[in-house]
Amino acid sequence: MNPPSAHSTDGSIVALAGGVGAARMLLGFVQVVDPASITAIVNTGDDREFYGVHVSPDLDIVTYTLAGRVDPEKGFGIAGDTFSIVDSLAERGHETWFRLGDRDFAQCLHRTLRLRAGDGLAQITDDTRRAHGLATRVLPMSEDPCATFVELDDGRVIHFEEYLVRERSPDNVKSVDLRAAAGARPGPGVLEAIASARCIVICPSNPVVSIGPILEIPGIRQALCNSPAPVVAVSPIVGGAPIKGPADRLLRGTGSEVSARGVAERYRDFVDGMVIDQRDAGLANDIEAMGLRVLATDTLMTRPEVSARLAESVLQLAQGSA
Amino acid sequence: MNPPSAHSTDGSIVALAGGVGAARMLLGFVQVVDPASITAIVNTGDDREFYGVHVSPDLDIVTYTLAGRVDPEKGFGIAGDTFSIVDSLAERGHETWFRLGDRDFAQCLHRTLRLRAGDGLAQITDDTRRAHGLATRVLPMSEDPCATFVELDDGRVIHFEEYLVRERSPDNVKSVDLRAAAGARPGPGVLEAIASARCIVICPSNPVVSIGPILEIPGIRQALCNSPAPVVAVSPIVGGAPIKGPADRLLRGTGSEVSARGVAERYRDFVDGMVIDQRDAGLANDIEAMGLRVLATDTLMTRPEVSARLAESVLQLAQGSA
Repeated sequence: MNPPSAHSTDGSIVALAGGVGAARMLLGFVQVVDPASITAIVNTGDDREFYGVHVSPDLDIVTYTLAGRVDPEKGFGIAGDTFSIVDSLAERGHETWFRLGDRDFAQCLHRTLRLRAGDGLAQITDDTRRAHGLATRVLPMSEDPCATFVELDDGRVIHFEEYLVRERSPDNVKSVDLRAAAGARPGPGVLEAIASARCIVICPSNPVVSIGPILEIPGIRQALCNSPAPVVAVSPIVGGAPIKGPADRLLRGTGSEVSARGVAERYRDFVDGMVIDQRDAGLANDIEAMGLRVLATDTLMTRPEVSARLAESVLQLAQGSA
Repeated sequence: MNPPSAHSTDGSIVALAGGVGAARMLLGFVQVVDPASITAIVNTGDDREFYGVHVSPDLDIVTYTLAGRVDPEKGFGIAGDTFSIVDSLAERGHETWFRLGDRDFAQCLHRTLRLRAGDGLAQITDDTRRAHGLATRVLPMSEDPCATFVELDDGRVIHFEEYLVRERSPDNVKSVDLRAAAGARPGPGVLEAIASARCIVICPSNPVVSIGPILEIPGIRQALCNSPAPVVAVSPIVGGAPIKGPADRLLRGTGSEVSARGVAERYRDFVDGMVIDQRDAGLANDIEAMGLRVLATDTLMTRPEVSARLAESVLQLAQGSA
């Protein structure tokens, strides 16, 4: 973090990213700056093996979205994908609550085969984004296992994907277990990207289970605090509710207020500014009182043009001209 | 083996089976006897991992054929299958000379996931044939790894599937390595099925790499010799050439004559009779001179009716009434 006046104009934009919200934010940045100047550091806390293959939901959502191949309705998966593999497995008695499409499966199988052959997740992810013709760098936050677990009031501790997909995000969250991330090493290039960034963006992703695991990896939060670049977060909470997903239940379950103010509280040690939704403009004073600059605008990225305008706003705030 | 007069009329028919030829032979037997009285003991020497899944070509060919789901043109794979997985992997730079269809892949993935969960290949195979509504039992010859390797004149030693599919069965076979089978244990139920059979059939499969591995497993060849039931082999060689596949190159490469007589030589210690093609009737005297009964008929199973007639001929010869 740094006072706005000190930021340089060269170097890259680094974005901490989860899934759908982050992917749409990145889709904004690639419209307003050189895509090759952007590096996404992506959460791998959701990763899990399904059907024998290594599924990396956030890495694939970011890549498929930037490549224009994502299923536009769901925000994840590949547009027009078929589901013969999970259907075949279901016929044979397997649990198939994670509906992985066939082309999506092939991508995960490719990742699995390369991992088994000894390649690193960062290299595989980089090759994949290049194969999709993407200039934007996509870095896994870590190459170590980082599974996020959710503890429920009934005492069960379940993998985040089980919480999100199988159980459909119940409200009875007692705590979130990020110990795996806390014991992991930053992925190749992650600390270097943060250190050389001219602007750092915290995408409007779930603060607890998408941005949370990235911040938990030893060295990353400190690197953000130490960065000479401005750090700007976009609130994923609008009018007291998440745009998508269970951020409300996870924020509440981990003791945060479900509001842009609650998100600012979690990030205040390393961010310089917050972009919040225009509907939350009334919270600006409280967030400014934390020592952060605030910009209120339309943050509902329903169309690529909105994403682009939001990206402009983030850069404006980062440059101290908002 | 036993003189024809001594065979009993109850008990089951046991068939030693490879792939396409065996499957078509079994398709004959299920038309002329109770399918539930048939047990196929199937070669697993062709098994290999492709794309992270356990492929069992002969087990699947037999099961798919009996279930009426096999691709009728190729004789293997599933009719109407798609190939999006191998195509996707090819796009990503993987070797995909083994063109596994998507539904076929799902079956192999199912097998892999169950094996990984600790289930045995025999149990999985049995559940699969039941799921297809098949009354005929399908037993893997072994649950141990039994990979068959082919040594070429150029010094290379390659897996049988590499020989068959990737290299398209070249002629320069120096030897066939069945040492894995020679160190394997018979699968659950295999020796019991042979011991209690009322009739044992050696299907018209490749004598070297389909029937050969089954015979190589310690205990099986001896069980055939000891059986009180008649043992009848159907020659896969017609007019000096195999009906399908590289049996000629493999017989030659392992020192056998490429003829029904050459096949009889390999089996003479445990068979009582040979069914040969009518075009090879001139070889009958030579084979009878080995002490075997011979029946010459149409063995080209181009249609299910021919398979049924051939099955009748096998039973006739087994019963000593041919």
